[in-house]
Amino acid sequence: MKVKILDNIDTRAEIVYISPEDNDPRDAQTELAQLILDQKKKLVHVVISDMVIKGEIGIPKNLGDRLNIQTGNAIAIKPRHRPVSYPLIMKKYDHKKWSGEDLRIIIDDMYQGNVSDLEYAAFTLAMQYESLDMDETEQLTRAFTLHGETIEFNEPVYDKHSIGGIPGNKVSLLIVPIIAASGLLIPKTSSRAITSPSGTADTMEVLCDINFSAQEILEIAPKTRGMLVWGGQLNLAPVDSEIIKRVERPLSLDPESVIIASILSKKLSTGVKHMVLDMPTGAETKMITRNDSKQLSHLFVEIGRKVGIEVECALTYADQPVGHAIGPALEAREAIATLMGKGPRSVLEKSIELSGILFEMAGLAQRGKGSVIAEEIVKSGKAIKKFWEIVEAQGGNPNTTLEDIQVGQYTAPIHAKEDGYITQISNSQIKVIATALGCPSDKKSGMIIKRKAGEFVKKGDTIIELFSSRENALDIALQAASVKPPFRQEGMVLERIGSGSIELNRT
Amino acid sequence: MKVKILDNIDTRAEIVYISPEDNDPRDAQTELAQLILDQKKKLVHVVISDMVIKGEIGIPKNLGDRLNIQTGNAIAIKPRHRPVSYPLIMKKYDHKKWSGEDLRIIIDDMYQGNVSDLEYAAFTLAMQYESLDMDETEQLTRAFTLHGETIEFNEPVYDKHSIGGIPGNKVSLLIVPIIAASGLLIPKTSSRAITSPSGTADTMEVLCDINFSAQEILEIAPKTRGMLVWGGQLNLAPVDSEIIKRVERPLSLDPESVIIASILSKKLSTGVKHMVLDMPTGAETKMITRNDSKQLSHLFVEIGRKVGIEVECALTYADQPVGHAIGPALEAREAIATLMGKGPRSVLEKSIELSGILFEMAGLAQRGKGSVIAEEIVKSGKAIKKFWEIVEAQGGNPNTTLEDIQVGQYTAPIHAKEDGYITQISNSQIKVIATALGCPSDKKSGMIIKRKAGEFVKKGDTIIELFSSRENALDIALQAASVKPPFRQEGMVLERIGSGSIELNRT
Repeated sequence: MKVKILDNIDTRAEIVYISPEDNDPRDAQTELAQLILDQKKKLVHVVISDMVIKGEIGIPKNLGDRLNIQTGNAIAIKPRHRPVSYPLIMKKYDHKKWSGEDLRIIIDDMYQGNVSDLEYAAFTLAMQYESLDMDETEQLTRAFTLHGETIEFNEPVYDKHSIGGIPGNKVSLLIVPIIAASGLLIPKTSSRAITSPSGTADTMEVLCDINFSAQEILEIAPKTRGMLVWGGQLNLAPVDSEIIKRVERPLSLDPESVIIASILSKKLSTGVKHMVLDMPTGAETKMITRNDSKQLSHLFVEIGRKVGIEVECALTYADQPVGHAIGPALEAREAIATLMGKGPRSVLEKSIELSGILFEMAGLAQRGKGSVIAEEIVKSGKAIKKFWEIVEAQGGNPNTTLEDIQVGQYTAPIHAKEDGYITQISNSQIKVIATALGCPSDKKSGMIIKRKAGEFVKKGDTIIELFSSRENALDIALQAASVKPPFRQEGMVLERIGSGSIELNRT
Repeated sequence: MKVKILDNIDTRAEIVYISPEDNDPRDAQTELAQLILDQKKKLVHVVISDMVIKGEIGIPKNLGDRLNIQTGNAIAIKPRHRPVSYPLIMKKYDHKKWSGEDLRIIIDDMYQGNVSDLEYAAFTLAMQYESLDMDETEQLTRAFTLHGETIEFNEPVYDKHSIGGIPGNKVSLLIVPIIAASGLLIPKTSSRAITSPSGTADTMEVLCDINFSAQEILEIAPKTRGMLVWGGQLNLAPVDSEIIKRVERPLSLDPESVIIASILSKKLSTGVKHMVLDMPTGAETKMITRNDSKQLSHLFVEIGRKVGIEVECALTYADQPVGHAIGPALEAREAIATLMGKGPRSVLEKSIELSGILFEMAGLAQRGKGSVIAEEIVKSGKAIKKFWEIVEAQGGNPNTTLEDIQVGQYTAPIHAKEDGYITQISNSQIKVIATALGCPSDKKSGMIIKRKAGEFVKKGDTIIELFSSRENALDIALQAASVKPPFRQEGMVLERIGSGSIELNRT
């Protein structure tokens, strides 16, 4: 059939239009039909309408853009058949183990576009119900790398990754230049924010371009030794991305086996050989207890070893945000200030500790001594010099000053309502307020947490300063903060127990 | 917003159209929005198009029909929020037990139209992964009865149900009149075929109407003492039906907990107090081994007891189809012939045995003696008389003769290719061939299995005779039969072991 792009139809649902005079190829069981392009297939819903004539297939513009097809292209549409991988997916519901071959067939079928959302869900939910064993996770990791882009350097690639969950975690902007300044190769691909106020890619984008092709990365990184680019446009492990988009995000799932395979497969695809993995551990993060973190760490180390990546995990303090700045522009500022020796100790310390682990893995320092090298690289000014070199190589201005980085014109303080110690800064409420302010799409929005847990403050002191580009967003954020405050304050005496509260034993 | 029914749009996908000038209320996570009718809500995909003007909401005709809304009705559309039951559904993935309250909230949320397909899948797949325990299954059964139609008689209701999986199982058409003839009340609701060539409702529909409202059933059944109606239009346990439609059918799932809750909740809703449950057990059915059947039977008996239904299960022979006729018209003919004393012994025997169990449950016979009463009712002619009385009460012609029941004009035999014993008739291949012939929608299609397992046949003998209303369908069926024959034939010597096949021990 001939494609007709429908400019007046905009929808995120995957639907196509065919004429009432053409045969309706839908599958009665699932209401889906299969669109067949040159090499690829895609499951779509079929709408019968006289918007198109016989022999035409109407494709909404945004779907056409995604599939890269134009009016006049030839396309086939057929009833959808149950994918060959279906019985393999369902094996898990008979409590059987997936073999490497099973997982290859399943992932390949998904890549080919044969698998429906419900079948994707069956696959992912099985792993949510019961984690895969070590072999299966290894095989899933390998299967994810069978499709999509790969980048191969002819020298060892170092990497730092965070499993996330903690706001303000801008340490990649420090670690990459620290490592690169030592001569090791660290072409880091990062994500945009998923649940955090600003992903590393969002923050870096304040200063320079982050969209590079595999070829460009292969050209630039060996010179600068480090890069900070967005992994999203690289089409690494595309089936993993589909699983995230179709099941994990809509259902807020994060099965352990997929976390591991997802991260390690993307690292494998980009040639990473040594990686330090930041595991923020604490209240209101993904890893609540040290025990959870430790168990997941052991799996990462072991499965990394099996697929050829040396992994060291660092359980990091995460009971409150890292540093003071939250939001893309504010975090970029704080990262640069810290590289210049003017930032918060917590950000510097986390960055040099994680860098130090990589130096030790590289054999540049004895165990426990790597952070000394990292600190020296920062103090000497080599790290900040390298940072601007990377920004310049990625098309940014290396003469940017902190003042050049603009932040939202609408600001408002959140004050202490009483004297007392701050006993908690809530990660989750900080995220809610940051989202209300416009993070991450409004790059100038965010907040500075001026006083952190453990500090004594007086009534009326500013605890947090909010920033936004939109006055309205500021109002909504203030309202969110007043409904549920982002910090908790208490006096030194947390509770008072007197005779009135004691039940006396009468004898 | 004002509804505009779009007559020129036909789709099974649940989509609505709004104008580019109206705000797009979609949820970024799932691409869904929530349509709000008077009392009910529904999740839909949103398409932005100039097919409608500002303030209008375009609704495809078939969706409008299902929701019973017309052009001009007022309707609201809002971003979709995660349903309140979401964390309760996901509890199962933390290996926690569902309480009765949890299940009530989940089922209620589903009934309200707040739950997406993926969330429905998460609920159902959890039960596929691990069966619910006894308490949970009881609570699920009760939760299913919270919505939809209920029918309450003021006397005990008897029932016969089959868990299915066996072709040719027309015994309900015999059991209902046998029981009703004794004076017991058996207003049986049946399903249409799901995977079988003909459901009881499909078969009965050859002779009379099967669509009756709850009110009509309450009026007719006490007089005839028995009915055979389609349960599908009664809106019994509607959330169970949604689970079947949205998840179980597209994924071909049948979680044990849902089988039990699904059957028992529909029985509870129709006031059933005593039920005999037919569990066809054998090769190529749902229950392969006796052990599977026994385990499921015990659960049915126990959960039935908890919800107030006395259940007795009968494991029945199912290594080959029941009787000789397959397909709506042919099965109707065979059922009537059997009631007239001219049918196959296997159909009669299964019918009187299952009826006998109900007589014993009713206290009309001692244990093991019920089938004597049943056989007497058939032999005396009371059963066939009652059958025509029921047909007449349901709007059919009580003077219908076997010859009046028309079958397909296109027929073809399948012959034995050699002399030998028939060692197997394949249930699954019989279903494939019957579907190709047009079952169940072409009521005149089907087949007569003339020779069954254990019989000796000579080369060229007709084993099966096919019927269809369409010549083309007959060809396809013959092709399916030649690709994979529906029966297996062997000589009396099944294998020959001679010295050539024996590995000699050299000493």
